[in-house]
Amino acid sequence: MAQRKIDVVLDSVKRLIRIGATSNLVNLLQKQHPADLAQVFTALPERDRATSFSVLVERNSRLAMEALSELGPEAGAALLGGRSAEDIAKLLHELPSDDAAAIIDYLPEDVSAAVLELVQKRPGDELGDLLEYPEQTAGRIMNPKVFALSEDMTVGEAISALQGSRDVEMVFYLYVVDARRHLVGVVSLRRLLLVPPSTPLKRIMTSDISSVRVDTDQEEVARIVASYNLLAIPVVDEENKLVGVITVDDVIDVIKDEATEDIYRLAGVSSDERVFTPATESLRKRFPWLVVNLATAFLAAGVVGLFQGAISRWVALAVYMPIVAGMGGNAATQTLTVIVRGLALGELTWENSRKALLKEVLVGVGNGIATGLIAAVVVWAFNGDWSLGALLFLAMIANLFVAGASGTLIPLGLRAMKVDPALASTVFITTFTDVCGFFSFLGLGTLFIRYFHKAV
Amino acid sequence: MAQRKIDVVLDSVKRLIRIGATSNLVNLLQKQHPADLAQVFTALPERDRATSFSVLVERNSRLAMEALSELGPEAGAALLGGRSAEDIAKLLHELPSDDAAAIIDYLPEDVSAAVLELVQKRPGDELGDLLEYPEQTAGRIMNPKVFALSEDMTVGEAISALQGSRDVEMVFYLYVVDARRHLVGVVSLRRLLLVPPSTPLKRIMTSDISSVRVDTDQEEVARIVASYNLLAIPVVDEENKLVGVITVDDVIDVIKDEATEDIYRLAGVSSDERVFTPATESLRKRFPWLVVNLATAFLAAGVVGLFQGAISRWVALAVYMPIVAGMGGNAATQTLTVIVRGLALGELTWENSRKALLKEVLVGVGNGIATGLIAAVVVWAFNGDWSLGALLFLAMIANLFVAGASGTLIPLGLRAMKVDPALASTVFITTFTDVCGFFSFLGLGTLFIRYFHKAV
Repeated sequence: MAQRKIDVVLDSVKRLIRIGATSNLVNLLQKQHPADLAQVFTALPERDRATSFSVLVERNSRLAMEALSELGPEAGAALLGGRSAEDIAKLLHELPSDDAAAIIDYLPEDVSAAVLELVQKRPGDELGDLLEYPEQTAGRIMNPKVFALSEDMTVGEAISALQGSRDVEMVFYLYVVDARRHLVGVVSLRRLLLVPPSTPLKRIMTSDISSVRVDTDQEEVARIVASYNLLAIPVVDEENKLVGVITVDDVIDVIKDEATEDIYRLAGVSSDERVFTPATESLRKRFPWLVVNLATAFLAAGVVGLFQGAISRWVALAVYMPIVAGMGGNAATQTLTVIVRGLALGELTWENSRKALLKEVLVGVGNGIATGLIAAVVVWAFNGDWSLGALLFLAMIANLFVAGASGTLIPLGLRAMKVDPALASTVFITTFTDVCGFFSFLGLGTLFIRYFHKAV
Repeated sequence: MAQRKIDVVLDSVKRLIRIGATSNLVNLLQKQHPADLAQVFTALPERDRATSFSVLVERNSRLAMEALSELGPEAGAALLGGRSAEDIAKLLHELPSDDAAAIIDYLPEDVSAAVLELVQKRPGDELGDLLEYPEQTAGRIMNPKVFALSEDMTVGEAISALQGSRDVEMVFYLYVVDARRHLVGVVSLRRLLLVPPSTPLKRIMTSDISSVRVDTDQEEVARIVASYNLLAIPVVDEENKLVGVITVDDVIDVIKDEATEDIYRLAGVSSDERVFTPATESLRKRFPWLVVNLATAFLAAGVVGLFQGAISRWVALAVYMPIVAGMGGNAATQTLTVIVRGLALGELTWENSRKALLKEVLVGVGNGIATGLIAAVVVWAFNGDWSLGALLFLAMIANLFVAGASGTLIPLGLRAMKVDPALASTVFITTFTDVCGFFSFLGLGTLFIRYFHKAV
């Protein structure tokens, strides 16, 4: 729906809440698509959101829960906040179990434990089964309701089976299984229309079929679905038995989440933080990163401390040293970002990493010369001191060389150690360039004092 | 295909190229899926990649071009590099016109102009038509080959039409149009199977149908497809005539590109740069950002310059000032990242921005107190100077307050001015915290010299 229409609904909802016209409110909400309701909920003040959700859940709990699910698992969990574990467990069964599982992960710990217990108590409960799989695996994000046909069927029988099935939304591929439910092939819906009803499924199915195992990492699932342009991929267990299906809309969520994770890690933010994570929790989550940064900042300060003598003799060194360090930090951030994203998108591999390193070093030195020249001229023009300009010029080249090299090598090294390269975040890399920047600038400065600079 | 299998193919390809067994090479390549070929191409050294592509294009130009397209438009364009414009134009017609259009954008300027001219010369050429639409719009990424049914048809006629159609891969929704090709409804393939063949399409079609216009921004298209969990969305012109369709696999590419754009902008990297953009081009693209940073770094240096007198009397100020600035920079980067991502994902809106600001300021002050205390104790332990510790503590709180406030307000302000908030990149925000950090630390230091610090 267009934003304009959403705004109209939003205004009406606010007005109906204000005047307390509950039944009109429910009628209005009932007419909306879950995705639109989610947009309306997002835009409402917290209290109105809770009110609208409560009144809708009474009348049409399926729609209310679908809208809640569209809000994303975190905001969704927040909306369920005040309810009892029994209530939450019942409502979660209105959702596909993969979506319900995602929401449980975001409930407050005591509530989620209680809900889990309720859900897992019932043997054969789909949601309970799904929660047995580790987070971020195919098993956790799959939909266990998968439509499968027996390999002994004919096309006509398959069509009847399809006509008789309910609750199977979005069937794109019809998976074919043998008597023991091993995945043996796939038939597209369109293919069924093109052959006579008496044709055996076996004859028209494709046996060369992509599948993933329950323990496959969700990022790998997303990569496969995206690169083969699939609409869905079947999930099998260790024995190749069909246990679920992951559809492309779940893959889109995975791709978004993984991108968020990369962006966050680069900045030293924990990947499960969101805009409205409570302040105390955000504080606790960001604190360790800042402590790491503090430790490394003391390292940089230690380097400066080595040159206290030089600074007290030539105080302009203290004025210009942040320039060299800052430029190195920014150049390194540029390199780091390109390298980390290249690794994430699969464009950068071992084979071509030497080429990438060479390029980044060249770019670093080139920009070091260019920006160093500008800085030197500016300093010389303001200060009349050619030796200070020359010093800045040389230190800038050295530090932008270091920026290019470390911005490439550190993430590649982390990847080699099977650590997420995005953890080579700005925090680490800028400290590295701070230390090198201060060292090169102040070290060269000490030499300059001895040979050129006659001040003091 | 699993990575292991790709590696086997890769080794064979390398070996066959080495011994010059061209026909064996072509046979091997011919058996692969385009997405797997793309992976093999990516992992091959540049020369071998060119060789394999050339031999494959001779025998099976469709497969070769599909693999090239899977490489992504930039790497794809690079592989076409050496060929004549005529040759390229011919090969591009093997691809869906949306993919071909994306590749043309990445060809060297003179070649792309020549190819464009060849393509647009032929009236009615699909690819030529597509290129009339501006980049990043629905028109540019849509597939003009869309399967449409007339509203006067019966279900039986629709099924026959479908059976007779070729070259229409991935039909999920059947769009229904009136006599003048206005979009009037949609029927799912599955629905066709559930009703008798004599049913008029009009009776079973859904008329409440989401569509986008040719000039809709691709990011908006991605948002709609993702939030309504669609597999495809029809594209209409100004008169609501059906002109194309955008499928979910194109949407996945858009989502990835937009995430890359955000990540890049935050780091001050231009969004069309990739790992293997030539060094000279990368240098030219990153240079302006670094110059902006240089200008702002001089600003920070200017602030330090104001306090030269204080530094020469108390040189430890120069040693510890980078700590305050650096901590502020990192805290601001954390805040900025959470805010920018929240805006991109639609979780942060005008309505709730005050709440976000309050939270970020609280987190900033909280972490300022916590890390400031640690820093003060460390300095006091090492230095024995309580006034230096107290100074660090106060300046850290002030600067992390500034970090939280500016990291929230600057991207929100840019959004208000309809500028991409990701442009409030680390480059700008860290300068801001540098200036404030130096100012608060050195300013307080000057006061401390007057009242407490008896050194010098």
